[in-house]
Amino acid sequence: MSESAAGAPGGRDAPYHVHEIPEFTLECGATLRPARVAYQTYGTLNADKSNAIVYPTWYSGRHWENEWLIGPGMALDPERWFIIVPNMLGNGLSSSPSNTPPPWDRARFPRINVRDNVESQYRLVTEVFGIETLPLVLGWSMGAGQTYQWAVSHPEMVQRILPFCGSPRTAPHNKVFLDSVGAALRADGAFAGGWYSPDALPVTGLRAAARVYAGWGFSQAFYWDEVWRELGFSSLEDFAVGFWEGFFLDGRDPNNLLTMLDTWWTGDVGATPGAGSTEEALASIRAKALVMPGEKDLYFPPEDERWAVSHMPNAELRVIPGVWGHFAGGGANPVDTAFIDAGVAELLASEPGG
Amino acid sequence: MSESAAGAPGGRDAPYHVHEIPEFTLECGATLRPARVAYQTYGTLNADKSNAIVYPTWYSGRHWENEWLIGPGMALDPERWFIIVPNMLGNGLSSSPSNTPPPWDRARFPRINVRDNVESQYRLVTEVFGIETLPLVLGWSMGAGQTYQWAVSHPEMVQRILPFCGSPRTAPHNKVFLDSVGAALRADGAFAGGWYSPDALPVTGLRAAARVYAGWGFSQAFYWDEVWRELGFSSLEDFAVGFWEGFFLDGRDPNNLLTMLDTWWTGDVGATPGAGSTEEALASIRAKALVMPGEKDLYFPPEDERWAVSHMPNAELRVIPGVWGHFAGGGANPVDTAFIDAGVAELLASEPGG
Repeated sequence: MSESAAGAPGGRDAPYHVHEIPEFTLECGATLRPARVAYQTYGTLNADKSNAIVYPTWYSGRHWENEWLIGPGMALDPERWFIIVPNMLGNGLSSSPSNTPPPWDRARFPRINVRDNVESQYRLVTEVFGIETLPLVLGWSMGAGQTYQWAVSHPEMVQRILPFCGSPRTAPHNKVFLDSVGAALRADGAFAGGWYSPDALPVTGLRAAARVYAGWGFSQAFYWDEVWRELGFSSLEDFAVGFWEGFFLDGRDPNNLLTMLDTWWTGDVGATPGAGSTEEALASIRAKALVMPGEKDLYFPPEDERWAVSHMPNAELRVIPGVWGHFAGGGANPVDTAFIDAGVAELLASEPGG
Repeated sequence: MSESAAGAPGGRDAPYHVHEIPEFTLECGATLRPARVAYQTYGTLNADKSNAIVYPTWYSGRHWENEWLIGPGMALDPERWFIIVPNMLGNGLSSSPSNTPPPWDRARFPRINVRDNVESQYRLVTEVFGIETLPLVLGWSMGAGQTYQWAVSHPEMVQRILPFCGSPRTAPHNKVFLDSVGAALRADGAFAGGWYSPDALPVTGLRAAARVYAGWGFSQAFYWDEVWRELGFSSLEDFAVGFWEGFFLDGRDPNNLLTMLDTWWTGDVGATPGAGSTEEALASIRAKALVMPGEKDLYFPPEDERWAVSHMPNAELRVIPGVWGHFAGGGANPVDTAFIDAGVAELLASEPGG
């Protein structure tokens, strides 16, 4: 537990926890010995273990970058709920190319898929805390993908899900976008097939990847209206460098980014063993679902989530309005944060599915 | 004139023309000695020189890549009209980094803006042909930008314009996209600041730029519906490599691409000397305009063109429906081609502006 005196989350510098799984066999066949699942918690698990919420991280995100949706007076109030934020495998805190010793280090780190992540989190939740029921799983972007996978892999356990700005299956256009990020990163010769020195990162490639991402993360209207001014930037270039290049240079390792890119690319609840198809996997979800895409999200467009909801037995589509695009779900502006928070509150107050 | 016996345009291998302007001073202050404007014509200029249409090229396009909209039975019928397709400066046929001798060669090629292009085309049209009136100027994408500029720079001359999938001013988000293409290309160390050998192109960077472009050129729905199958590709990767990487490797020089990228980036009719502002420049257009954005164009979204039309005195907005995104205007599918062709026919049959 890392909390300030006021109950606010602890931020980047707060101590966090690591659950070690001595032998963790991935779907690709490789085994991490051990797998490390870094996580943070907020609030206190109650006596009957009925108040736990799982809130996985997103592409390159770390647990403290989920904290904007957690706090006193918010739906995810640590006074009421026990919120677990597990870090994705590959994000640099949980087992990743950057922190795994040879021979499975760096460019040799094995492939991770969404189900591997959910399995690692299931092990954490059950082995460390003995939790059998989750009133809610939620997440942004790749966190939404993990949320869907939780509901498909553990229908008996997950009562509600709130995936926002994400999808149960990575759409083809989204894959094209992801490939472009990877191609920009790898175009830098300093990447050297992933065998760069940690002291000499391929920063040109990282910056190019950041510039590619810049066009996708926010909507055309966001840029037309110069809404980046609300984030304190002084010009388009100031935003492109200050926000985007800064984002990719902020402790983000290229091999880690590519591991998570691959996790994202292959995401599909329909590939769950025994699921049959994406549609059948969606139909098998017992959790009550509130699905919240961003109105102008360019890589998780609302029509894709409309399709997903049409295959789910107990789901509502609620589009986050406005121009922030994918970052409607990134906690970057108070209007969208309030909209999502209201959705979380409403869902938590409703009858569970299942 | 290059025409087959059946009247169809001549294609890539047909002879084309070059107009040399001995001294051509660019807005940036540099002088091309000479500037070469490569062009192709279709049809015959009539005696009173009243049937000429200018149809500029687009980003990286060559004159033969405009020919899909020209032909017997189409609105741009060479039996009726004299169609001039001037190649943009920087496209590899007109004066470009790749074909200009030292000292203004390669990475030292001067900056070109949209007005430089229109001026070079004005010199061609007036000096070579003595044309004083243009019943129509039209173009796709950057060709649309040149179309707008023609109407602003020569209102006494241009009677009608049909800009499709383009804009009079490059929008901020569009600039972010363009920067990402440039960053991917330059990330390849073989680019060497533009001083690569013509025998050793930075192909990794070219391919990365192609992959970036792939996400923008067609809509999310185009990829979701696998519409690339209509173009004869067998998988998403087949399309990404076969269409996109192939496109960028098809005689397209990196310095040329960056010159045109810069031309695009700085496009703004409002920067025309004396124009005052983009809005005032648009208000000064006397030509009758039919403005045709693509419904799902990701970098020239219809709302931007709605804004442009709202400032023009004699303009109609007509959205090209469907999922082809920017390539609705690329001549890649017969439905959109027929839609645009019908617009051209209707506009040509209408009373001219001015």
